[in-house]
Amino acid sequence: MITFASDYTEGAHEKILQRMMETNLEQNGGYGTDHWCDSAKEKIRMACACPQAQIAFLVGGTQTNQIIIDTMLQPYEGVVAASTGHVNVHEAGAIEYTGHKVMTVPSHEGKMQAKELEQLLNASETDDNREHMVFPGMVYISHPTEYGTLYSAKELKEISDICHAHKVPLFLDGARLGYGLMSRETDVDLPMIAALTDVFYIGGTKVGALFGEAVVFTKNNMPSHFVTRTKQHGALLAKGWLLGIQFDTLFTDDLYCTISRHAIEMVELLKKGLQEKNYHFLLESPTNQQFVILDNAQMNRLSGQVGFSIWEKYDETHTAVRFATSWATKKENVEWLLSIL
Amino acid sequence: MITFASDYTEGAHEKILQRMMETNLEQNGGYGTDHWCDSAKEKIRMACACPQAQIAFLVGGTQTNQIIIDTMLQPYEGVVAASTGHVNVHEAGAIEYTGHKVMTVPSHEGKMQAKELEQLLNASETDDNREHMVFPGMVYISHPTEYGTLYSAKELKEISDICHAHKVPLFLDGARLGYGLMSRETDVDLPMIAALTDVFYIGGTKVGALFGEAVVFTKNNMPSHFVTRTKQHGALLAKGWLLGIQFDTLFTDDLYCTISRHAIEMVELLKKGLQEKNYHFLLESPTNQQFVILDNAQMNRLSGQVGFSIWEKYDETHTAVRFATSWATKKENVEWLLSIL
Amino acid sequence: MITFASDYTEGAHEKILQRMMETNLEQNGGYGTDHWCDSAKEKIRMACACPQAQIAFLVGGTQTNQIIIDTMLQPYEGVVAASTGHVNVHEAGAIEYTGHKVMTVPSHEGKMQAKELEQLLNASETDDNREHMVFPGMVYISHPTEYGTLYSAKELKEISDICHAHKVPLFLDGARLGYGLMSRETDVDLPMIAALTDVFYIGGTKVGALFGEAVVFTKNNMPSHFVTRTKQHGALLAKGWLLGIQFDTLFTDDLYCTISRHAIEMVELLKKGLQEKNYHFLLESPTNQQFVILDNAQMNRLSGQVGFSIWEKYDETHTAVRFATSWATKKENVEWLLSIL
Amino acid sequence: MITFASDYTEGAHEKILQRMMETNLEQNGGYGTDHWCDSAKEKIRMACACPQAQIAFLVGGTQTNQIIIDTMLQPYEGVVAASTGHVNVHEAGAIEYTGHKVMTVPSHEGKMQAKELEQLLNASETDDNREHMVFPGMVYISHPTEYGTLYSAKELKEISDICHAHKVPLFLDGARLGYGLMSRETDVDLPMIAALTDVFYIGGTKVGALFGEAVVFTKNNMPSHFVTRTKQHGALLAKGWLLGIQFDTLFTDDLYCTISRHAIEMVELLKKGLQEKNYHFLLESPTNQQFVILDNAQMNRLSGQVGFSIWEKYDETHTAVRFATSWATKKENVEWLLSIL
Repeated sequence: MITFASDYTEGAHEKILQRMMETNLEQNGGYGTDHWCDSAKEKIRMACACPQAQIAFLVGGTQTNQIIIDTMLQPYEGVVAASTGHVNVHEAGAIEYTGHKVMTVPSHEGKMQAKELEQLLNASETDDNREHMVFPGMVYISHPTEYGTLYSAKELKEISDICHAHKVPLFLDGARLGYGLMSRETDVDLPMIAALTDVFYIGGTKVGALFGEAVVFTKNNMPSHFVTRTKQHGALLAKGWLLGIQFDTLFTDDLYCTISRHAIEMVELLKKGLQEKNYHFLLESPTNQQFVILDNAQMNRLSGQVGFSIWEKYDETHTAVRFATSWATKKENVEWLLSIL
Repeated sequence: MITFASDYTEGAHEKILQRMMETNLEQNGGYGTDHWCDSAKEKIRMACACPQAQIAFLVGGTQTNQIIIDTMLQPYEGVVAASTGHVNVHEAGAIEYTGHKVMTVPSHEGKMQAKELEQLLNASETDDNREHMVFPGMVYISHPTEYGTLYSAKELKEISDICHAHKVPLFLDGARLGYGLMSRETDVDLPMIAALTDVFYIGGTKVGALFGEAVVFTKNNMPSHFVTRTKQHGALLAKGWLLGIQFDTLFTDDLYCTISRHAIEMVELLKKGLQEKNYHFLLESPTNQQFVILDNAQMNRLSGQVGFSIWEKYDETHTAVRFATSWATKKENVEWLLSIL
Repeated sequence: MITFASDYTEGAHEKILQRMMETNLEQNGGYGTDHWCDSAKEKIRMACACPQAQIAFLVGGTQTNQIIIDTMLQPYEGVVAASTGHVNVHEAGAIEYTGHKVMTVPSHEGKMQAKELEQLLNASETDDNREHMVFPGMVYISHPTEYGTLYSAKELKEISDICHAHKVPLFLDGARLGYGLMSRETDVDLPMIAALTDVFYIGGTKVGALFGEAVVFTKNNMPSHFVTRTKQHGALLAKGWLLGIQFDTLFTDDLYCTISRHAIEMVELLKKGLQEKNYHFLLESPTNQQFVILDNAQMNRLSGQVGFSIWEKYDETHTAVRFATSWATKKENVEWLLSIL
Repeated sequence: MITFASDYTEGAHEKILQRMMETNLEQNGGYGTDHWCDSAKEKIRMACACPQAQIAFLVGGTQTNQIIIDTMLQPYEGVVAASTGHVNVHEAGAIEYTGHKVMTVPSHEGKMQAKELEQLLNASETDDNREHMVFPGMVYISHPTEYGTLYSAKELKEISDICHAHKVPLFLDGARLGYGLMSRETDVDLPMIAALTDVFYIGGTKVGALFGEAVVFTKNNMPSHFVTRTKQHGALLAKGWLLGIQFDTLFTDDLYCTISRHAIEMVELLKKGLQEKNYHFLLESPTNQQFVILDNAQMNRLSGQVGFSIWEKYDETHTAVRFATSWATKKENVEWLLSIL
């Protein structure tokens, strides 16, 4: 059955597999000490216009969030996220497992508001009981968010300014970064993200790789002994060059953007079709995830024909469901989906 | 300067100190293996009308919350609390430090509502992503709450029923339990608490002891090797009999209730005086903590004369402050306070 | 430069890559819910003659050790290992990071002795201070060990019997299991391991896979909510079918054994050559790792010609170095190595 | 039954209880913000000849070891101790619970040897796999040790020099410090300890207090937000002045030394009597703990008459047992003990 349930239902872009085939018997040093990692890092630094960036490759998203947050926070600090943030909801408590609280601000279609963030930071600094409370030590945003929405350059700048005024680093979870960068409705690019955040990651798992996330420390601020701490978390990939090869390929000839743009084109086709059929959306998403409100009878019927994700109850008779496109989505499948909707 | 800032500003009830003096050179086994602990446990079991109760003594409130929650939860579980719960706000992340998330429901003057708790538990059980989320594994309530409010017997029963319908244990933080039990406006007593909760503790630090909290496991459900786990948390008091002596004294001749009632009488005197002077309250508290709204000029003037706690900003020109009475509050001090207000 | 430094210097067996190419655009459910994982699990159950085995796939060795140990131990328990065990020495404290002590017994060329294990378990059970000490809650052995040595069937049986007499589960780290199973000098096979241990894993990273370890719970004893706990550790691979495909391939047509046997043939060639050249060995290893004593001048010269691992200082003028073969080792490279030694 | 089983079988020196009685209804700020703590700190600074010392009070020994080690180590670091060190054996894994490994060097009657420590530190720094291993980040010694032995000034200086040459802080566990300082056979005093260590604590629980340990950071190196981290560990005593009063009393008019000397006088009386009766000792202890070898029949007979600790099996027919004196030991009890031995 064809599925639009998520953006990680296929393997990797063919150029990645091809490169892995070609180099399969090449002997490499382990744990990221190889030339592929070096090359990939250099290409990412260029793409970010951030020559001083320190880069590390990890395998998956929850792992990456956990390690970045745990290694950058002091033990008495927590991370601030929108209440719908992945780290707060869908990581099985992976942040708390490392001893840190996720502190929340309200979610506005997945995003936090600069003003509400500032209130939390101000309140923390002026509270008489400050020393008996968790210190906010990092701000986490996802871009695109879990609801497919995007921060504008202005919003990102405001949040960044507040973070830095309060000496709190800003971390951007880019698990779906390509789909944000290639949206028609964004004015945010990679160099801007590198400039405004302290650390972010470029998602590979959902954007053309078999697996892998590229963590970019932008301010010469990689935690000391990062390799050791990654090992301590059980997250140091033995054959690290597999990450290097994948990101080297994705950042050669603009492949990361090209394939992300394809997902956007596919989602635009889908969105246009849905609009023409008068479907209602839970919210306006400018990226590869679309949240459509279905009546429950229709949803049940559809569930036997095509894969999608049940997102949340909308009302007693309707449910919001998610359709996602990706680098691998075929045009004929989108057209077929529209034909059965 | 006289202070009403909190209910732990003096030492211990004189009978406790006297008993400690008398028995000072008695030789006892360490770590709670002594006869004082045995005697105190038996008296508490009687007071709770819970002959099967398993009891342990710990030193302080945050420590007790941390150890109860950590030892009763499975590693993949979190604890549900009202957003204003002490474990969520004022314990410096002590729960998260042990790897567990604090999951919140809205606070209604410090209390959670049964219906909102039920919604959270239902939502968790039916979520498609359940296995990627923290499981609610315990419910935490404080009684009195951090705002001095109390659950009624009916409310407590509802929450207890919901917990047990969902197979989630109910934990009642009784750091100020005596002041709740002796309130004129409660229909909750100790046997009822023992019957409706799975674990609770009887606060000593704020109610007549130098320090100490008596943890009561009501359903033959003390976690295995509880002494070892207490030691592992660094919380096993070497001279455990000091806890035994204190609780044995507090539960002899109804002392715990008698001294708690005194605090209630003192707070009633204070409350009546404040009402007569037309002070406004942040909320109606039936226990030993009163939250009074002061205009900021008056608050600043008062702060040079008497001790109180700044609770929260009320509006641009007013602040809510806390006055607390305790077992040790002197009537003449309350009268003096009213005279200067 | 050709290297024999480790057994994870190349990618994957060509059949694995080929299968990944063929199925690349197949859509699969995430997190191990796919048919490849199901198929691989069934084949492993057959190979282990253990129809009730519960199987999970993880990405890497340290991660696997960490998750098995953390999820199977009670919080007050530690794991017993030989002092040279990987979990004690070369995992950057990944076990302690999860809160558990690694308790050690002496290492005899990488192995523990049944008698010394029994002493430790007996001592723990009879110690007057037992409740103030870490409880041994699991026994960890590696097979082959970090020194390439193997337990005999008799030794394995003795250790297993002691574990079970003391109600302590036995965990076998099989990161290099194929090379142990295919050694000429072993009487231990996969069904025996499944019968004698409570949990073990079949290493893929070092034996033909890009990455991946297959964890086998042999006694219907997989910890509850294992997926959730894996996620909480940041170790749940999104595209879980990549693990399924690899292990399905390795356990089709006996591939795992065939390629492991190749590594043994290559190491025998190497060993024979070294013996003929009168090299001394640190110890007698019947598997794919050989520890050769070189004088330091020779070692320095060689280090410009071929890759190997510096293992440990032997004496003032000699060093023990490791040469490893693997499924990917080429015969001409072994011959070339012998020619330059 | 009279007991010599440990040095924490009685309450507190009468002057402490008296001071607590006198000041019982004095109102004090919580959490160590009171004038008693200030005064006690100043007296300790003077006694240590260490005007810059930063001091904190905690309740118990395991708690203190856990908090010092956890707050001073980086997450990727472990603590080095003699294998018999309290943190390695008798704290139920409290150090590992906080995520840190206890790394061991051999124990020589409870002490570590400078040379063996140096070997471990050198080995760590030069290991090719350093980044995959736990970094030694602190050295822990107890003085007196768990076997009653003492470091000489020369030994302490050597260990201190090695630590500082390797930039690793030295932590001295002084749970029984008074009995070490007052031994006839020591050339180590408090200012020397302050000068040679980076952090140490002065034990109160075993030396005249109801409870309490005074932590002394000697090099302006108290971890930031130490109060918050103490709270996070559940270890911040609400009525912190109880610690202040106790240490203020102990450090007034040399009381700490006076009462420690009494324990030494009592142990000398005991030791002399035992020698005259030709008892054999497990080792020569110059402090308040004596380890005597009894034949098992005698031990069993004695166990019905007097309390002592069973320490370890000596041989098939003998056991080493511990007799401890303390500030509270009565001369007539020692004489009685000698009369029945």
